[in-house]
Amino acid sequence: MTPKALLFDVFGTCVDWRTSVAREAAALGLPGERVADAWRARYQPQLETVRSGQREWVVLDVLHREALDDVLDELGLELGTTERDALTLAWHRLDPWPDTVPGLTRLKERSVIAPCSNGHIAQSVNLARHAGLPWDAILGAEIARAYKPDPRVYRASVAALGLEPAEVMIVAAHNGDLDAAAACGLRTAFVLRPREHGPGQTSDLHAEGTVDVQAGDFLALADALDV
Amino acid sequence: MTPKALLFDVFGTCVDWRTSVAREAAALGLPGERVADAWRARYQPQLETVRSGQREWVVLDVLHREALDDVLDELGLELGTTERDALTLAWHRLDPWPDTVPGLTRLKERSVIAPCSNGHIAQSVNLARHAGLPWDAILGAEIARAYKPDPRVYRASVAALGLEPAEVMIVAAHNGDLDAAAACGLRTAFVLRPREHGPGQTSDLHAEGTVDVQAGDFLALADALDV
Repeated sequence: MTPKALLFDVFGTCVDWRTSVAREAAALGLPGERVADAWRARYQPQLETVRSGQREWVVLDVLHREALDDVLDELGLELGTTERDALTLAWHRLDPWPDTVPGLTRLKERSVIAPCSNGHIAQSVNLARHAGLPWDAILGAEIARAYKPDPRVYRASVAALGLEPAEVMIVAAHNGDLDAAAACGLRTAFVLRPREHGPGQTSDLHAEGTVDVQAGDFLALADALDV
Repeated sequence: MTPKALLFDVFGTCVDWRTSVAREAAALGLPGERVADAWRARYQPQLETVRSGQREWVVLDVLHREALDDVLDELGLELGTTERDALTLAWHRLDPWPDTVPGLTRLKERSVIAPCSNGHIAQSVNLARHAGLPWDAILGAEIARAYKPDPRVYRASVAALGLEPAEVMIVAAHNGDLDAAAACGLRTAFVLRPREHGPGQTSDLHAEGTVDVQAGDFLALADALDV
């Protein structure tokens, strides 16, 4: 049974943030992959300051900019303020995995498709225009003013579509995201992205909990959903 | 100078609500145009109950359903509850004007495009899928929990895109909408829709205030913006 809507994690699931960020950092003379990995390593701890209530919700651009300063300090790298501001927007220009756009295009024929990302609306719009992601709407963190896996993000995204959780499937390459969405009553699809963290990836190489669908990429997901 | 984003009024500006609603009402044996006109006549007074603070913000489906009961009473028409519920969703299935989709497609090449409608997200998504409106995001009333011309709707929509008001142009066939957006600092485009209210339309036949662009349809708007 095809879900009425599919909500997608974006970073890692739809787009290859590591290669894209590394390329932009390298173009500024920085060690691309080291910067990308160190930058992303700060992501969950930063979100946790918002989830825990220690800090008010702010858009991801603010967190990314702060983390970049820390990363450059830690790695002993120099970069001017203008270049730091510009590099922060690399997160608006991430490339899709090869199956992402054809997969979304097929899935959209039968289901509403929208991101349920921790990216804010402006970032999601710019990313969709860069990567050609054919979303029906931009949902996720900003409409809830919270960060996944806070249940308010899933619930606000489902409610905005006027649907019940069981009518909606979350698609993600991350077990933690799927578990949190399942706890809110959404159906779940694990999509394998074994190179998200580069060639040595050890996490999220298979679904760890019970999921409704497990697929190798978005085209296999469309096959599994019989689209 | 092309605006970074274009925000569109939808009912009347992008879609021909009167013909579409009348057709669905007629299919249920009702006098289509009389129902459509009487239904729409209740719209602004209903929104005013929210704008004035008399009533909490609710999605337009709720207001449309209540107004339909009143319209059928007033016109002395019979209709079952199931049919009333189904007819309410006619507002999710409105047809575009002939120039709307080709115009939006051209305008999207250079600017972010999004509705800034009093329709809620679910209605806007369903309408976009029905009519083929290629939006980059769904903005408008629901993200502000207010109804146009309340300035919060324009401001929230601009802020969600991470832009300044002067970087954004509102496109509407209604002088009141343009005036309210201009007061928030947005640029304005008046598009003529002389048959929105049928052959006897007397309002909104030209721009009444100062507007940045005046165009006969969305293709002429694209020409004016040099897209």
